[in-house]
Amino acid sequence: MVCAALAREAGYSVIALTVDYGQRHRIELEAARRIAAELADRHVVLPLDLRAFGGSALTGDIEVPKDGVGEGIPVTYVPARNTIFLSFCLAWSEVLHASDIFIGVNALDYSGYPDCRPEYVAAFQHMANLATRGGVEGTTPVRIQTPLLHLTKREIIELGRSLGVDYSITLSCYDPSPEGLACGHCDACHLRRKGFAEAGLDDPTQYASAGH
Amino acid sequence: MVCAALAREAGYSVIALTVDYGQRHRIELEAARRIAAELADRHVVLPLDLRAFGGSALTGDIEVPKDGVGEGIPVTYVPARNTIFLSFCLAWSEVLHASDIFIGVNALDYSGYPDCRPEYVAAFQHMANLATRGGVEGTTPVRIQTPLLHLTKREIIELGRSLGVDYSITLSCYDPSPEGLACGHCDACHLRRKGFAEAGLDDPTQYASAGH
Repeated sequence: MVCAALAREAGYSVIALTVDYGQRHRIELEAARRIAAELADRHVVLPLDLRAFGGSALTGDIEVPKDGVGEGIPVTYVPARNTIFLSFCLAWSEVLHASDIFIGVNALDYSGYPDCRPEYVAAFQHMANLATRGGVEGTTPVRIQTPLLHLTKREIIELGRSLGVDYSITLSCYDPSPEGLACGHCDACHLRRKGFAEAGLDDPTQYASAGH
Repeated sequence: MVCAALAREAGYSVIALTVDYGQRHRIELEAARRIAAELADRHVVLPLDLRAFGGSALTGDIEVPKDGVGEGIPVTYVPARNTIFLSFCLAWSEVLHASDIFIGVNALDYSGYPDCRPEYVAAFQHMANLATRGGVEGTTPVRIQTPLLHLTKREIIELGRSLGVDYSITLSCYDPSPEGLACGHCDACHLRRKGFAEAGLDDPTQYASAGH
């Protein structure tokens, strides 16, 4: 939501893409709809059942870890997920003649996912330049923008606040209760809470438990 | 099918992925099933409705051209399609610990699609190396193999024949009749017929008309 708010603040018309990929926390699709209603001129929810491939706690039967952000790549990593998401954005941006793709990846307070790193984003940009009509016809390629890449969670939360983001309609948790309460213990909850605490702001998230 | 037969000949176990992307020539999904039954150890047909984005004669209301292979990128180009397909293969290969991804793209007798060119494939490989666990953990990345990239259609057809490929179960046409007869006039039909003619082989395809 902070990424979308930044794009809008910079004067872009925002076309939002949400992927319904069989995620365990599918209640995030409702959050996406609320956020798009506030910030986007158009919103598409694309179904793609990544459970066909499996291999992740977010799409399969593997448990979401609740014991703090560890070393290495956690089981919540969804194989090649951001590559798939960005490929969809690349396809749609070519049809729409969109100038920029915004993605809210972060490489500081994050879970160590390979597809959130600056070198990955640069490689995707290079590939994208060759993948589409512009790569043959010599027109300006779409630009992949990652304005949150080098910010801490604290900085992201402060930035969103300065842009008037209503955090009560957002959701970070990987494993919310059926009623939509955040678990308070998964990596996404840990990182979110840490960010709010460091920014000295109240987190409006309703947690199922008080956490660590 | 020639690409899959080559992989099998080289000793690989073949796991086949077909994308049901809302293509006009969806009868190719039946051909994919026949081919997978013959050559693959496992086959998944993944639904992904690319009509959500549009922008192509293969997924929308634009007519498929029937006046010969021209200059430039034709309207049958599906934006970022091979990037999307390869992203799926990347995800699945990571889950399966597959060593190689085979894709039958060709950059000689082809329609000029940007995502069939060697420089595109090289850029995707580089991006893939960074996108997945191996890019962080330093394990051997999956290798993208394009054995047909630099062959003419004639060479591809001769190669398939030497591997015992049964061309009667394949389909190339972009705009087949509801009964599955190839149109004989789209780019895919033109290139296929040219290949068979140059190889001096009979094309078992049933065409709706005699063509040019």
